[in-house]
Amino acid sequence: MNTRIYNVRILTMEEGGKITEGEVWIEDDTIVCVGQPKETAKRKWDLEIDGKQNLLMPGFKNAHTHSAMTFLRSYADDMKLNEWLHTRVFPAEAKLTGEDVYWLTKLAILEYLTSGITSIFDMYMYRKDGARAAIDTGFRNVFCESINDFGGTVEEVEEDYLTYNKDKSKLISYQLGFHAEYTTSREKMEGIAALSKKYAAPVYVHCSETKQEVEDCKKRTGMTPPVYMDTLGLFEHGGGLFHGVHMEEADFEVVKKKGLYIVTNPASNLKLASGIAPVKKYLNMGIPIAIGTDGPASNNCLDMFREMFLVTGLQKVLYDDPEAVPAMEVLKMATVNGAHAMGLAECDTLHVGKKADLILIDLEQPNMQPLHHIEKNLVYSGSKQNVKMTMIAGKVLYQNGEFYLDSSKEEIYKEAEKTVRRILKEQE
Amino acid sequence: MNTRIYNVRILTMEEGGKITEGEVWIEDDTIVCVGQPKETAKRKWDLEIDGKQNLLMPGFKNAHTHSAMTFLRSYADDMKLNEWLHTRVFPAEAKLTGEDVYWLTKLAILEYLTSGITSIFDMYMYRKDGARAAIDTGFRNVFCESINDFGGTVEEVEEDYLTYNKDKSKLISYQLGFHAEYTTSREKMEGIAALSKKYAAPVYVHCSETKQEVEDCKKRTGMTPPVYMDTLGLFEHGGGLFHGVHMEEADFEVVKKKGLYIVTNPASNLKLASGIAPVKKYLNMGIPIAIGTDGPASNNCLDMFREMFLVTGLQKVLYDDPEAVPAMEVLKMATVNGAHAMGLAECDTLHVGKKADLILIDLEQPNMQPLHHIEKNLVYSGSKQNVKMTMIAGKVLYQNGEFYLDSSKEEIYKEAEKTVRRILKEQE
Repeated sequence: MNTRIYNVRILTMEEGGKITEGEVWIEDDTIVCVGQPKETAKRKWDLEIDGKQNLLMPGFKNAHTHSAMTFLRSYADDMKLNEWLHTRVFPAEAKLTGEDVYWLTKLAILEYLTSGITSIFDMYMYRKDGARAAIDTGFRNVFCESINDFGGTVEEVEEDYLTYNKDKSKLISYQLGFHAEYTTSREKMEGIAALSKKYAAPVYVHCSETKQEVEDCKKRTGMTPPVYMDTLGLFEHGGGLFHGVHMEEADFEVVKKKGLYIVTNPASNLKLASGIAPVKKYLNMGIPIAIGTDGPASNNCLDMFREMFLVTGLQKVLYDDPEAVPAMEVLKMATVNGAHAMGLAECDTLHVGKKADLILIDLEQPNMQPLHHIEKNLVYSGSKQNVKMTMIAGKVLYQNGEFYLDSSKEEIYKEAEKTVRRILKEQE
Repeated sequence: MNTRIYNVRILTMEEGGKITEGEVWIEDDTIVCVGQPKETAKRKWDLEIDGKQNLLMPGFKNAHTHSAMTFLRSYADDMKLNEWLHTRVFPAEAKLTGEDVYWLTKLAILEYLTSGITSIFDMYMYRKDGARAAIDTGFRNVFCESINDFGGTVEEVEEDYLTYNKDKSKLISYQLGFHAEYTTSREKMEGIAALSKKYAAPVYVHCSETKQEVEDCKKRTGMTPPVYMDTLGLFEHGGGLFHGVHMEEADFEVVKKKGLYIVTNPASNLKLASGIAPVKKYLNMGIPIAIGTDGPASNNCLDMFREMFLVTGLQKVLYDDPEAVPAMEVLKMATVNGAHAMGLAECDTLHVGKKADLILIDLEQPNMQPLHHIEKNLVYSGSKQNVKMTMIAGKVLYQNGEFYLDSSKEEIYKEAEKTVRRILKEQE
């Protein structure tokens, strides 16, 4: 399949790159030309898209989510994290089946596509069904292991690591991880550390999301979560921390020394009253930051535009500094850094040889006018409404409000609704 | 013109009202039936809209904005308020003509319509041209007087008060106000207070937006801005404060005692690092709160969905309380309270006799699924993308992504761009 996208502005997201005009050519799932084509001979195209001077850029990478939690959207809001987890989330999740997760993940994928998200770092159970949902729709899903004391053995983790990293097309891949220090025994964490050593693989984990979590860990271990986990050898091959809101000096040092990514989830941290992560400080220390939506039960939406505005807006108030975290840094977090954090270096920029995971941004919406500064418009006034087209691995999955998937949105809504009804009934 | 909207879910926003199913009938600019019509005789309709089980609700009221500042969107970001005003905003504004304001206001109106905003409380110069933009497009604009030491006399204010409150259809109306304590002489403020007394009219003003503003006022007057302005007799007939971020105990008392509205602008307050308004405290004291986007130069977008999420999300973190400011309160602020703050009691709810300013929300977008709780979905996961139709005074101005106005969006963009180019050139 050969695709030509022409008459577009191009934001490659390569270091120091400016917006240029030209074309992007795609063969199967790979970009083969960016800019002004040198070739003069007429090619045969399977698909030609007139970009109408809109903006083509790499898709957003949602570097932390729990996709199938769509079923809990607006089910339990305005509650404290602990109460929320134990009285609402865990009992409802206990009733999920693999088939439920398949449809609930598909529901999340619909929303990712409307927000220009082309890959996710997904932490959830029933991985086989989550993978099926991604493959059937053509979506790119990097699983993050979430073993904890309620489920999973280190042997199963190793098996999954080998199974889900076999896919050469990389629609599906997998990274080592575990749920959190406070939900996982020392033995299991040591098991993960051993796997990390064996495969020279990075490790990802929820960390320092709430003040309580940090205090409890210090009581138990005498150390903060990042320092304690580091003593277990978990970060010898890098990895990342989801949230990283409540950090002490020693924690910043661990993150910096071990080359960890911070994946910030500002909307979820607001909604659950967890706090505001010190993103400006990470940035000043040269720590790479990626952005996640977190799951739809806590956020409640899967919208990279809302997250991007929050990433910079909250820092300005937190540090009393309107210059904090400029827009271009935020765009880099949402694209390039996200890709690298998830092990998707081949999906980071628009460049020959990279995967064709890209989005077309509608500049003909009033929130993008005038065109003083397109990158700033994206971060400060962009919205889902500006996503004209979402392409993953060279395939158009969403365009002008329509989905091009194996199931219709109506079918997905119906199946998701059925799951919700059943679980709520069982819950009574 | 008789319009029938059928097969819809209806959220009237009346106190204690639940979502019901039925129809809404409109004659000219007025709602004549809400719910299940009793009439059995067949009517003749000029327009029938199948709502397809989507949600009909009152349009959002943007209770603080500076519409024509669209020309400065993404022109000067990441700067401190004072520097931003004096080095970027004021010099550029000095070059505006009335014709510029006409087109720049139209650009803002396009964006309001995409966000389901049906009326605005607009503070800007060249009022005649702003009014022309609203009337030509069919948009509802309540002007807020912005006299200050750089322009305007009390006599002109009185003239405008009388001129812009003549419109019986109320597409255009006008409220007394002034820019801010720190930009307006005592004499002018006393002049406004006298007009307020003469016409028994409320007064609106930017107030306590930054810490600096409060400190400066205390140095000059020995009082905080709300207390000082109250001593001048400005609030004897109510009114409202835009921002109200940095408030002391005595300020809350003034607001409460004088029945003032607080118009909160959370995105602008983040972006300019002004702070987070104590919305939860206002709410607990029974002080009515409305929501504004502020102008597109500071925000930078005109999106009530982003504001609604911020109004509650920021409070949860500010007060370390995930239960702070529940979703239904936010929806009330964005609709009913906004209408009342702006003197548009006839546009507050869906009720027989009220003006037909209403919006149709697309529930068939993935961010609205499943339908556990539609009101919560609106506040926590809603987006501009969900606005299917915006009707003002019984006329459909925006539907399914298309505008139905006197000018095309292309013409508006072209004229706005022309203004921008000219001003930037003069600026050099």
